[in-house]
Amino acid sequence: MRKIKMVLEYDGGNYMGWQIQPNGISIQEVVEKVLSKVLKIKMKVYASGRTDSGVHAEAQVAHFTTDSRMTELEMVRAFNSLLPHDISVKQVEDVSESFDARKSAIRKIYRYIILNRDYPSALMYRRVWFIPFPLDMSAIMEAKECLIGRHDFLAFQGRNAETKTSVREIYRIDISCKDDFIYMTFEGNGFLKHMVRNIVGTLAWIGKGKMPASRMKEILDLKNRRLAGPTAQPQGLCLVKVIYPDDCQ
Amino acid sequence: MRKIKMVLEYDGGNYMGWQIQPNGISIQEVVEKVLSKVLKIKMKVYASGRTDSGVHAEAQVAHFTTDSRMTELEMVRAFNSLLPHDISVKQVEDVSESFDARKSAIRKIYRYIILNRDYPSALMYRRVWFIPFPLDMSAIMEAKECLIGRHDFLAFQGRNAETKTSVREIYRIDISCKDDFIYMTFEGNGFLKHMVRNIVGTLAWIGKGKMPASRMKEILDLKNRRLAGPTAQPQGLCLVKVIYPDDCQ
Repeated sequence: MRKIKMVLEYDGGNYMGWQIQPNGISIQEVVEKVLSKVLKIKMKVYASGRTDSGVHAEAQVAHFTTDSRMTELEMVRAFNSLLPHDISVKQVEDVSESFDARKSAIRKIYRYIILNRDYPSALMYRRVWFIPFPLDMSAIMEAKECLIGRHDFLAFQGRNAETKTSVREIYRIDISCKDDFIYMTFEGNGFLKHMVRNIVGTLAWIGKGKMPASRMKEILDLKNRRLAGPTAQPQGLCLVKVIYPDDCQ
Repeated sequence: MRKIKMVLEYDGGNYMGWQIQPNGISIQEVVEKVLSKVLKIKMKVYASGRTDSGVHAEAQVAHFTTDSRMTELEMVRAFNSLLPHDISVKQVEDVSESFDARKSAIRKIYRYIILNRDYPSALMYRRVWFIPFPLDMSAIMEAKECLIGRHDFLAFQGRNAETKTSVREIYRIDISCKDDFIYMTFEGNGFLKHMVRNIVGTLAWIGKGKMPASRMKEILDLKNRRLAGPTAQPQGLCLVKVIYPDDCQ
């Protein structure tokens, strides 16, 4: 039996998120159907984690097992020939039997994009949160600092989350502006449900002047979701990279 | 009466092109309906030129006349509030009565994007021509040189074109590669129907080795469309800029 690591790119705009849902079509469902067709046996794929409805991935990682004799490139081509345009397989790789897309992951990188100007973008609307009000970038830069490190991020966890602990470590939050776009990159050992979007929503409130930059630390310390800002729109978020021990060698 | 210059961005993927068509919805039709609603009078807008079905624009320019007292920013906001997400107004500007979006234009810049690797891109498929075969970039670079300057581009003109002359001047063709994307930028005093896409299709054939680089000059000289390559897919093309005399001051 082969254990296969698969890297996927998707535009989440037309899906109910990664995980199979009763109320709409999911990316997992589409991928499993295509793999089942190509490999001629009912397939299950296991991802590094869920992505919410509308959230994109440049490189989601999933694993599956198969006894197919197809080469890696043959699989990539066969899967892509049947997948819809908004889901693509970037890479397929034989890995050791111990590899698990979720459990083996040691770090994840997410990017959030805000478009901050008077008018929206017809070419980018699927990928950004459009905010037509001026944002105070220095307040945003100040507010994000307290989030870096190991903390209990309960205040930024969405409802109905299924996790044992809400403690996570954020290694870096890089924020840069180019033209009218604000790029926020989050790297951590894991992220709670809605955590990045809730942090971005709170940063946006601070940027708009609805609360001072110092409030971020209070919210984090008090662990109270209701004190934080709104959940930022899903289409601005993208899972950029999932990092495994082998990637660090 | 005010003469207004309007800059528009659009994703052409859902439209039959700029110009009003009997067989499907056009960008012009959608824009005229929104302007008519906001300005409360039946509006006509005149663009710098047509874009084909599926072709995008980062900055199409159009003009219209109105006796509205709305400010420029009020118009931008009102138009965008009613336009669909895939069409946006970037700028509205009062111009002199003599301004004509088509006749006053002196240069246009188009960009074509090819994705050249084994697997497609779920996040970029709406904006690129995906070519999964290796392309010989040095042959492409050699072939494009003969196109620069003033020539009769009849060999690259699509059928049923309505123009007096097929002579145009190309000022530059810049080709660069980044990651797996090939960016081709064309700047000229005007472009014939399908001209950029027919040139790109021919360059792609040369890149694939279906004809030598020297064939480009023969095709241009013989003015025979049937000798050239296929028309490149529309979604790779984007109208980047329309230049007017005032922009050069």
